Amino acid sequence: MLDNYTSSLTSAHKKFLEKLFPGGVAFDPEVLRVYASDASLKVGTVLAVVRPENSDQVCEFMRWAETENIAVHTRGRGTSLSGGCVPTIPGIVISMLGMDKILNISRDDFVAEVEPGVSTAQLQEECEKLGMLYPPDPASAKATSVGGNVATCAGGLRAVKYGVTRDYVIGVEAVLPGGKLLRFGGRTHKDVIGLDIGRLFVGSEGTLGVITKLTLKLIPKPEASASVLVGYASLDAALASMGKVFAAGILPCAVEFMNETVLEILTKTSEVPWPDTVKSLLLFQVDGSNDTVPFENARLSHQLHDALWRMEGVGKDEEDKIWAYRRRVSAASYVLGPDRIGGDMAVPRGSILSAVRRFEKIAASNGKRLVAFGHAGDGNIHANLHYDASDPDDARRTEKTHHELDAAALEFGGSLSGEHGAGYLKDVSKQLGKDEHALMRGIRRVFDPKGILNPGKGY
Amino acid sequence: MLDNYTSSLTSAHKKFLEKLFPGGVAFDPEVLRVYASDASLKVGTVLAVVRPENSDQVCEFMRWAETENIAVHTRGRGTSLSGGCVPTIPGIVISMLGMDKILNISRDDFVAEVEPGVSTAQLQEECEKLGMLYPPDPASAKATSVGGNVATCAGGLRAVKYGVTRDYVIGVEAVLPGGKLLRFGGRTHKDVIGLDIGRLFVGSEGTLGVITKLTLKLIPKPEASASVLVGYASLDAALASMGKVFAAGILPCAVEFMNETVLEILTKTSEVPWPDTVKSLLLFQVDGSNDTVPFENARLSHQLHDALWRMEGVGKDEEDKIWAYRRRVSAASYVLGPDRIGGDMAVPRGSILSAVRRFEKIAASNGKRLVAFGHAGDGNIHANLHYDASDPDDARRTEKTHHELDAAALEFGGSLSGEHGAGYLKDVSKQLGKDEHALMRGIRRVFDPKGILNPGKGY
Repeated sequence: MLDNYTSSLTSAHKKFLEKLFPGGVAFDPEVLRVYASDASLKVGTVLAVVRPENSDQVCEFMRWAETENIAVHTRGRGTSLSGGCVPTIPGIVISMLGMDKILNISRDDFVAEVEPGVSTAQLQEECEKLGMLYPPDPASAKATSVGGNVATCAGGLRAVKYGVTRDYVIGVEAVLPGGKLLRFGGRTHKDVIGLDIGRLFVGSEGTLGVITKLTLKLIPKPEASASVLVGYASLDAALASMGKVFAAGILPCAVEFMNETVLEILTKTSEVPWPDTVKSLLLFQVDGSNDTVPFENARLSHQLHDALWRMEGVGKDEEDKIWAYRRRVSAASYVLGPDRIGGDMAVPRGSILSAVRRFEKIAASNGKRLVAFGHAGDGNIHANLHYDASDPDDARRTEKTHHELDAAALEFGGSLSGEHGAGYLKDVSKQLGKDEHALMRGIRRVFDPKGILNPGKGY
Repeated sequence: MLDNYTSSLTSAHKKFLEKLFPGGVAFDPEVLRVYASDASLKVGTVLAVVRPENSDQVCEFMRWAETENIAVHTRGRGTSLSGGCVPTIPGIVISMLGMDKILNISRDDFVAEVEPGVSTAQLQEECEKLGMLYPPDPASAKATSVGGNVATCAGGLRAVKYGVTRDYVIGVEAVLPGGKLLRFGGRTHKDVIGLDIGRLFVGSEGTLGVITKLTLKLIPKPEASASVLVGYASLDAALASMGKVFAAGILPCAVEFMNETVLEILTKTSEVPWPDTVKSLLLFQVDGSNDTVPFENARLSHQLHDALWRMEGVGKDEEDKIWAYRRRVSAASYVLGPDRIGGDMAVPRGSILSAVRRFEKIAASNGKRLVAFGHAGDGNIHANLHYDASDPDDARRTEKTHHELDAAALEFGGSLSGEHGAGYLKDVSKQLGKDEHALMRGIRRVFDPKGILNPGKGY
């Protein structure tokens, strides 16, 4: 691993980049500022931004970057909440948004081949036009690229039934430091020859190579869906109901929860349809055929008979109205403070209630409120803390709470991150054993001996 | 990597093993003979068999084996069809069948923790008693261990809807050469901290470590299922029907196909219920709730209106009668010859028909018949060749055909193996690029610098 990365570009460096990326390179500080940060709002130092349009350019760039000891930070749409795209070690940002094509979508193979910069929502849409579904559905699908989803193994709303990004990546083409382009997997849904390196790229946070092409598995698009928002007197009652749904053999495609603080915020910031007795919400979606969805919906409703209130919707338009309450949570939470530290811990599913209650207590002991919602079916808790960064005491207490929440998640046998990744913000050594961590770093060195890829990020 | 492995055990070696595994070690050639082979019928050389009962013994053994330069071949139930368990380099077989406990199955977490030696069928059964499903369902579930399934990323009958073994492994505990016990993942359904090493173990064919514990994701058990066996005049007509099913948005949990040769064999070896006009079969299964399965079944039947003949069954007893025809294929195929070379190539789903036709031509050009059946929904073709090993010309032509089939599978963008693994029999260099292969071996060295784990196998 390098001790010293090149910390400024010579004019020879700049000439090389200008020649390799005609019209696709920037050194202007105004432009670089955009690429110095991501949705985490942490800021790093960018020496240049390059925007390849084909894999040949990526190969040549990676050959050069390794020789020149230059750190390379691969970037999609920069929506990382954990600082995964921030050049904390000064380097060149390689924006993959110039490689954003859908290369093909096959109704025969149920496979899509895409460049990494393609918008997740666009891919979903194109697949659906052809009667197919690309199931990974991060809440941020409209804002993210598939390459970014792969780098973080993005989860999302349908994960409880359909799994996460990892489960749909069957082929990866990537360029390694030194400039070699490697291909793993392909268009077959199954392949057990050799180690499954393609999937190792999923969730690797830009540390193994620059992905230049992805082959994704698709499934038939379900004909119909229905959603139900159900209200309970407490999160305890809500999660008890959820347990009954799974015990009855129902596998919804989405199960979201919102704690009491979320309902307070929603009530405070807008008109809400539920009565005052409702303090916690669950949101379910089921899918299937036009014939079966009404039955699935009825079976689900039967298990939710304890609910104090419910709002049902069948089909996109009606469901969108219901989901709007869930979508409003993040923005509405800013009434608690203009700044935010977000958590996305995962715990074993049966521990969600205890974990949220524990998190709330920790927050309260620091004079903070906990906004807790997320993917209950996966045990994935968005535990957000709002504060005012201009108030040093608030900032300190919030930071302290955040670290205590992470520690508590681990006590439940959980993970510091269910979908955002470690990025720059998570101290993975709290979760990973020393030997396990060393092994991961050993593997990283096989791909990237000098450590030029997204250094300081991941693990 | 070692050039020379210890090729015989000294009395000090034997004493060490007897002390570490009281009552759990064998040197008797009669016993060792059993462990020298697997379902591939290839034979290797076993220096000793050990049977640990806990992970402490595995740690101590692996510390010692690395120091003593002894090759270690991990073994479950020895059902590998590709020689994955055969000690082609003489070494010690570590049988994991002494660690076969189900440690816990949680209805709250939808997680099972098991030791690797547990029988797949037993785990499935115990989960189902609790209303949960462990979806991976290799056709050989009754004969296999979960650890063996993980080593090969076993697929099976339900993969088209539920995925393969990889998709259900969320935690792996394994002992590496040198004796360190490492833990990756755990009981959370989602975890994106660090590289996904747990899943790298899936399909690693015993080359990365000795797995001592597995944490598996479960799903709610569907209430009901239905199967339909449908007959067509040709495989062409059958697969055209399958295409319509997927295009209609139906995701069956199983889609099996059988080519014309299979039907000839079934007709020759037993009474069959279909008319003579039927030359190819598809077998579908759908699952869901008691209410929805009849609708799914009707929707499926509607897409299969082209079929010449059909046999439907709802519920286990009726379905078992239907599936019996599929299960009979392997055994019945021996009418074509007492010896077998099995193939389990995967191709992109849309290429199954062309691939099977190509395989048949290759077989015919060598004077052979091709038995082709398998998991059509995954593009996974069991392409079996039967012959008489006592006839050298037949054996030679069969071997030649087998290699030509492998080459043809790759021309379709396929894989040499969809579920059996490379083991000892597959020449992975035909499929893997040189750089990709070198990278995999580099990763292997991170886990196992001396190369004592299942040397000569995998990749």
